[in-house]
Amino acid sequence: METLGPFTACPGELTVPATTLFAVGLDARQPLQRQVYDQLRALILSGRAASGARLPSTRALAAELSVSRNTVAAAYDQLLAEGFLVGRVGSGSYVAPDLPRPDGADAPRKARARAAGPSRRGAALAALAPAHGARARAFVPGLPAIDEFPFALWSRLLARAWRSPQRAWLAHGDPAGLPELRASIAAHLGAMRGVRCEADQVLVVSGSQAAIALAARVLLDPGDVALIEDPVYPGLARALAAEDIAMAPAPIDAEGLDITVAARIAPKARMACVTPSHQYPLGHTMSLARRVALLDWAARSGAWVLEDDYDSEFRYRGRPLASLQGLDQDGRVVYVGSFSKVMFPALRVAYLVVPPHLVGAFRRARTALEDHPSTIAQPALARFMEDGHFVTHLGRMRRLYAARQAALLDSSARHLGGLLDVAPDPAGMHLVGYATKALQRRMTDREGAMRAAARGVTAQPLSAYYRGRAKRQGFLLGYAAHSEREIERAVKTLAEVLG
Amino acid sequence: METLGPFTACPGELTVPATTLFAVGLDARQPLQRQVYDQLRALILSGRAASGARLPSTRALAAELSVSRNTVAAAYDQLLAEGFLVGRVGSGSYVAPDLPRPDGADAPRKARARAAGPSRRGAALAALAPAHGARARAFVPGLPAIDEFPFALWSRLLARAWRSPQRAWLAHGDPAGLPELRASIAAHLGAMRGVRCEADQVLVVSGSQAAIALAARVLLDPGDVALIEDPVYPGLARALAAEDIAMAPAPIDAEGLDITVAARIAPKARMACVTPSHQYPLGHTMSLARRVALLDWAARSGAWVLEDDYDSEFRYRGRPLASLQGLDQDGRVVYVGSFSKVMFPALRVAYLVVPPHLVGAFRRARTALEDHPSTIAQPALARFMEDGHFVTHLGRMRRLYAARQAALLDSSARHLGGLLDVAPDPAGMHLVGYATKALQRRMTDREGAMRAAARGVTAQPLSAYYRGRAKRQGFLLGYAAHSEREIERAVKTLAEVLG
Repeated sequence: METLGPFTACPGELTVPATTLFAVGLDARQPLQRQVYDQLRALILSGRAASGARLPSTRALAAELSVSRNTVAAAYDQLLAEGFLVGRVGSGSYVAPDLPRPDGADAPRKARARAAGPSRRGAALAALAPAHGARARAFVPGLPAIDEFPFALWSRLLARAWRSPQRAWLAHGDPAGLPELRASIAAHLGAMRGVRCEADQVLVVSGSQAAIALAARVLLDPGDVALIEDPVYPGLARALAAEDIAMAPAPIDAEGLDITVAARIAPKARMACVTPSHQYPLGHTMSLARRVALLDWAARSGAWVLEDDYDSEFRYRGRPLASLQGLDQDGRVVYVGSFSKVMFPALRVAYLVVPPHLVGAFRRARTALEDHPSTIAQPALARFMEDGHFVTHLGRMRRLYAARQAALLDSSARHLGGLLDVAPDPAGMHLVGYATKALQRRMTDREGAMRAAARGVTAQPLSAYYRGRAKRQGFLLGYAAHSEREIERAVKTLAEVLG
Repeated sequence: METLGPFTACPGELTVPATTLFAVGLDARQPLQRQVYDQLRALILSGRAASGARLPSTRALAAELSVSRNTVAAAYDQLLAEGFLVGRVGSGSYVAPDLPRPDGADAPRKARARAAGPSRRGAALAALAPAHGARARAFVPGLPAIDEFPFALWSRLLARAWRSPQRAWLAHGDPAGLPELRASIAAHLGAMRGVRCEADQVLVVSGSQAAIALAARVLLDPGDVALIEDPVYPGLARALAAEDIAMAPAPIDAEGLDITVAARIAPKARMACVTPSHQYPLGHTMSLARRVALLDWAARSGAWVLEDDYDSEFRYRGRPLASLQGLDQDGRVVYVGSFSKVMFPALRVAYLVVPPHLVGAFRRARTALEDHPSTIAQPALARFMEDGHFVTHLGRMRRLYAARQAALLDSSARHLGGLLDVAPDPAGMHLVGYATKALQRRMTDREGAMRAAARGVTAQPLSAYYRGRAKRQGFLLGYAAHSEREIERAVKTLAEVLG
């Protein structure tokens, strides 16, 4: 048999010289049979082995490649089964006739560049992604003290749950989440947040943004307007944008959002999204009068109120304030909370509490989306709460975070005077350092943030959280995840870059 | 002081007779202070305690309620902090003036009924939910033998991973999923499915529908047309509908989808969704010629191909066929797979493999949606795969399912003759029983399904899976999750209801 070069389309008999075409045996990670198969298939698809060409006998090819005949025969069998080869009795194996050639010999590829990337919707979604990574360094806001979480205990609870799992946890499961966990959440919210609900009204989801997106999908139509606080939590804005909701930013003052002002800005708003316990990011608490006015507006307009109670567990002075949901007599409030900040973010368990008359619609919507939460963590989390570990951990973290806030205030007083006005906050995981006029004359907060980032410190610029025209200058200084030493170091660095 | 009835708005002094208004102490689950607070607050909000009314002294109320003075004082403090009460020095506590009344004394509630429920979009989504629950009884399709899963081992792997978790697992994590798991998936798919990809191209998601929805969001715009097989997996149709994709059902034959026919049906289609290894639900394997033609169409049209390789691991005869993705030279194929059927459905881990040039857009889209997969199960799953348990379990399940298919065929031959033609299938977790003409004369498959359900047997009607006009009659008979005895019992029951 002639030996042919590797790139010649060859009618008639095809020979496969081992040294020029094959590298069989060189790739130790792949079984030999697989390598033979792969390379023959590549030959055929590329057109180098023409339709109708006859392959060498298994014996001959095996001898050429120094492999066993069985290896070659198995590769031929697979190619035969897949349609690359046809066999003729007593006559050997042939490359299948009339295989379309993927290399475009038959058809122009002029459209290949067309639509090679995402759709307009996909590109818009991708563009929403925050540019910065959430690196775990001072002063990233919203990050809990992960190192302090009792992982040994958590691991025992996971193991205990999964050693003999209940059948109900294993198949497709309740679209709302594990009943035991929902009951624990309802009890916790009732006791600590004044939320009035049964376990049936609780829906377990994977994160706050998922909760907001689900609420927007089920309660609003594309193009509907939602009132949002200004400044606002960017994740809320992203979740609403992804569901085609138009946003009307409403200014806030020391009492929070004023619905009489906001409703004039957007008279057709179908939802108001608020953080009444602890405004994000400024920290104000919505007064009782404003809460009642908001609920009244919602009931009169047939609109919804989304209450994002994102970090309400961390209050250091005064009593926790009852939720807005607890005041709702008309079934207008959808309440959102998350375990990300009390447990750890990668747990991905959060919850929605919906009015009773909406439970059915939310359950069906989730079933339609096959949006059942994973049950791996849920039983362990339910036990963590039932056995009191949740409340214990919460108490420890409150004390720790209060101390870290004090350290941040102390360091700020010593190093950031004349640069930032950092006020204490009776709640939360970050402080806001407002830029002094002196600092504002020298740089914007965005410039300051870039300089700090170059020195390894994350100081989110406050102005970036505003949507309207009036934007205050300053920085969000998250302290919960950082030791007092890191806080001091980062404050000094910040003072250097701003000074 | 006068004793007033419970429902009288009372200017001036307010007294609170314990027996008529309060049930303090009766609810043993709530702290006393909480009960006092709750009931005073309700009094105030309902208007029964008028603005400006003076509350009893703490000593007096405590005596009336037979609780400690501290209990009452603490309740008063909280109401004061929240704005329900105002205190005047030396003069006691008064209901705050000018509280808006939520009971609508000020404004009509005519709009209350308006928009009390979901939006049009929400109602449409809820309507997509399948009516039947996925009860784990014969012959529910797609359910694996959950009882056979090695949970003791799984629990040990979970515990080991979480005893000393890696930092990278705890904070917000990689939007694509744990690198170790993605590498294991890439290796598995390369070895077993001929998928050609790097770990970077793998995205961990929570389920097949989530994968399809994400692909539709990123690659298609609302109103775009996607070709789907007819009959089709309902979850695919729901996921596309939820993302506003119009669907064009294309008929299939023994070789699967024929793109030359399908493209004439929908010339503007931007995506084709196929199950080439094992058509769902009929089981056909897409021939090589049809695969290459489909890829050629995609490249020439700039369209996408979504390959849903949903149960490719369960093949009992012949070699596993290489995936369509492995033939793709133009970066047109998005490959979807899931662990639901090999592990257990509630695990909620599935994956998408995207062409390299799309990795960035998908990652950013997920970050924008805060759609990071939970890391609880991922490290354990990665270890389960790396240590060989996955392949071992897969092998055991193949043998078990092959035996159960044989039992189903045997029982069918003995009991369903003249009613259903049940053909063997070299792959998968269900068989299709085609209705004989004799059976079709007596009832439709939907009627048969209802009769079977009334007798405790789930036999999904085949005609329900079709979107076009030509619908074959028959039933899907899932066998993987059921013992041979249950299969025999269920077949006999089915024979009774159909006979």
